Amino acid sequence: MEVTVHRVAYFNAAHRLFRADWDEAKNVEVFGKCSNPNYHGHNYELVVSVTGEIDSETGFVMDLKVLKKLIKSEIEEVLDHKNLNLQIPTFSTTNPTAENISIFIWDRLRKFIPTHLKLAVTLYETPRNYVTYHGK
Amino acid sequence: MEVTVHRVAYFNAAHRLFRADWDEAKNVEVFGKCSNPNYHGHNYELVVSVTGEIDSETGFVMDLKVLKKLIKSEIEEVLDHKNLNLQIPTFSTTNPTAENISIFIWDRLRKFIPTHLKLAVTLYETPRNYVTYHGK
Amino acid sequence: MEVTVHRVAYFNAAHRLFRADWDEAKNVEVFGKCSNPNYHGHNYELVVSVTGEIDSETGFVMDLKVLKKLIKSEIEEVLDHKNLNLQIPTFSTTNPTAENISIFIWDRLRKFIPTHLKLAVTLYETPRNYVTYHGK
Amino acid sequence: MEVTVHRVAYFNAAHRLFRADWDEAKNVEVFGKCSNPNYHGHNYELVVSVTGEIDSETGFVMDLKVLKKLIKSEIEEVLDHKNLNLQIPTFSTTNPTAENISIFIWDRLRKFIPTHLKLAVTLYETPRNYVTYHGK
Amino acid sequence: MEVTVHRVAYFNAAHRLFRADWDEAKNVEVFGKCSNPNYHGHNYELVVSVTGEIDSETGFVMDLKVLKKLIKSEIEEVLDHKNLNLQIPTFSTTNPTAENISIFIWDRLRKFIPTHLKLAVTLYETPRNYVTYHGK
Amino acid sequence: MEVTVHRVAYFNAAHRLFRADWDEAKNVEVFGKCSNPNYHGHNYELVVSVTGEIDSETGFVMDLKVLKKLIKSEIEEVLDHKNLNLQIPTFSTTNPTAENISIFIWDRLRKFIPTHLKLAVTLYETPRNYVTYHGK
Repeated sequence: MEVTVHRVAYFNAAHRLFRADWDEAKNVEVFGKCSNPNYHGHNYELVVSVTGEIDSETGFVMDLKVLKKLIKSEIEEVLDHKNLNLQIPTFSTTNPTAENISIFIWDRLRKFIPTHLKLAVTLYETPRNYVTYHGK
Repeated sequence: MEVTVHRVAYFNAAHRLFRADWDEAKNVEVFGKCSNPNYHGHNYELVVSVTGEIDSETGFVMDLKVLKKLIKSEIEEVLDHKNLNLQIPTFSTTNPTAENISIFIWDRLRKFIPTHLKLAVTLYETPRNYVTYHGK
Repeated sequence: MEVTVHRVAYFNAAHRLFRADWDEAKNVEVFGKCSNPNYHGHNYELVVSVTGEIDSETGFVMDLKVLKKLIKSEIEEVLDHKNLNLQIPTFSTTNPTAENISIFIWDRLRKFIPTHLKLAVTLYETPRNYVTYHGK
Repeated sequence: MEVTVHRVAYFNAAHRLFRADWDEAKNVEVFGKCSNPNYHGHNYELVVSVTGEIDSETGFVMDLKVLKKLIKSEIEEVLDHKNLNLQIPTFSTTNPTAENISIFIWDRLRKFIPTHLKLAVTLYETPRNYVTYHGK
Repeated sequence: MEVTVHRVAYFNAAHRLFRADWDEAKNVEVFGKCSNPNYHGHNYELVVSVTGEIDSETGFVMDLKVLKKLIKSEIEEVLDHKNLNLQIPTFSTTNPTAENISIFIWDRLRKFIPTHLKLAVTLYETPRNYVTYHGK
Repeated sequence: MEVTVHRVAYFNAAHRLFRADWDEAKNVEVFGKCSNPNYHGHNYELVVSVTGEIDSETGFVMDLKVLKKLIKSEIEEVLDHKNLNLQIPTFSTTNPTAENISIFIWDRLRKFIPTHLKLAVTLYETPRNYVTYHGK
């Protein structure tokens, strides 16, 4: 009996879509206003989904108090109120699209989630633009 | 052409996370404030999802008026404004975690859903904590 | 590394559930108040989900600016502020249930989405009634 | 100690913005696509707000069970799944803008709300367009 | 230039509507299923609104970091995961309706909000039932 | 018969809370992580509320198509995907708190709203932190 448990979290960050190996004109052509060199920002909403068998002793797939703390230490404290391009080393060379941020988050969380549990993340850049990554 | 139809419902209930075979200290250690012996409560939000072929005559996978009545009689009238631990026999011995409540709901609905249709339930305990169960 | 990108859109339309080959009594019996001959209407909310590999150059699965324009030209400009039964030829003979509208939308979008990408649509008829179609 | 109690309700309806004493060109010029002669529709969301002293015996300003029934009989059963222009006599001569519908609702409810209580209504035509009327 | 700043918070609690000086039949007659002797519960959502002049030095009416901490210590730590009737002395004698809980919250916060600022609270018992109290 | 019409809009921007006449330590002490010199950002949600008599000819307080265009040209095109501190001259000297941004928006819109109509703005910096300004 596999169940998925979901936990929602939030962080606010600045970013720009940008490739250093492209000139400004090319960045604007491809990324439009999202490439503003002065940055813009978002209230990111994150859903972390963990799937597995229910532990018969606790009735939990995974204790959400534990998952909440993990998201706080590994994601919120790292990304909240940051400039993703300037302050997160991965995004000095990787374009911080919602797709790439979702993979960054999945990779950080994966190593702390017990291996018998599956992991997926959904990341809202805005209420109308969001992505889902299942790690494969 | 398989389509999934989803119907959203609500119920408000009290519960506590608790194992009778553990002492109070152990219950608090594992379940924290969710184990308050005086109970706390939630506005549960339920999404019932039914998947199958569209009936060519009606254009429905399943008539949502029928599904709405079924959720009302089998879930809302049973769980709404109840104390899950004290008033739902299953939860006198099974810990009423969101995981276990979702299985309880799935089991109750499954016997009324035509067998050629698949069933899944998503249960929000809070807007930030929720679970999904597909019945396998 | 497959990621799904989602884009949300809206349109407002009138419709009735109705089969021309059934008499009024039969339409009311099956479709209830949804069959009102004078029509009623909804604020439809649409989620278009596109799944595929991330383009290593842009960091996008699909440029959401492109998807947004596609939804605007192919769906919003076609369905918004329309009477589905009277003004959309498909629905002069097909009952405009949420199921059938989701297939109509999927079919229109599919021919514009690159073939290596998967497509799914979720259509909310109301916040409590919605459908999902993956095209198979 | 004055408190306001709010109750939320929903109805789905078709309408068009239209003045019979204007020709089609003038209606389109002023009301745009909202004047489509075939109608379009909305999921209207209604918030009914009642303000007054708390009854010291019950702890209620007004019993929300009573308010819920009143909204059901006076508003939902009258407007839900209707064509406002064709089926609500007021709107055969009054343009069914959100402003005018909010006054219609306020007028219908006012006569059933005890006179020592104040009444206001908020009506969402869409999540982005809504109106508030306090009855003066 | 008066501005209102709003801060949203959450707490989950059990309660029942009940007067000890009424017998069970009378409690059920007036409060219906909300009077279940075994309690039920809610995810309460609280909006705290503070109105005043903007401080020209900080650009704040009131530092929301301070307001957030105040709501946490005075409201969340007091009410979250509690049984309001059994564990909050006020509600051993006062019926814990949303109206009365909103006054309880307002009274607790008022003494910590600078006197030149106005205070209001909005309390959602469910997404469809809520109350507003301005303290007069 | 005064009615208020509300229109919702969105813009995404970067900012930092900061006073140039304070040193970094003082900025951090007062504004915390909101003062990050590399900026962070938000999805701002704006509600523009216009109050007045209903025009008896159109049934509108103010044509929302006109208000929508006005918000687009005066607010969205000015603030969306911008760095408020660096690109909006007002905020090179005024701290871009939600309070001050709401006044900036009100001032820009006020000159385009007919003088017999009242104006208010509500600005969400996050779903949990927002402000309201009525222009006095």
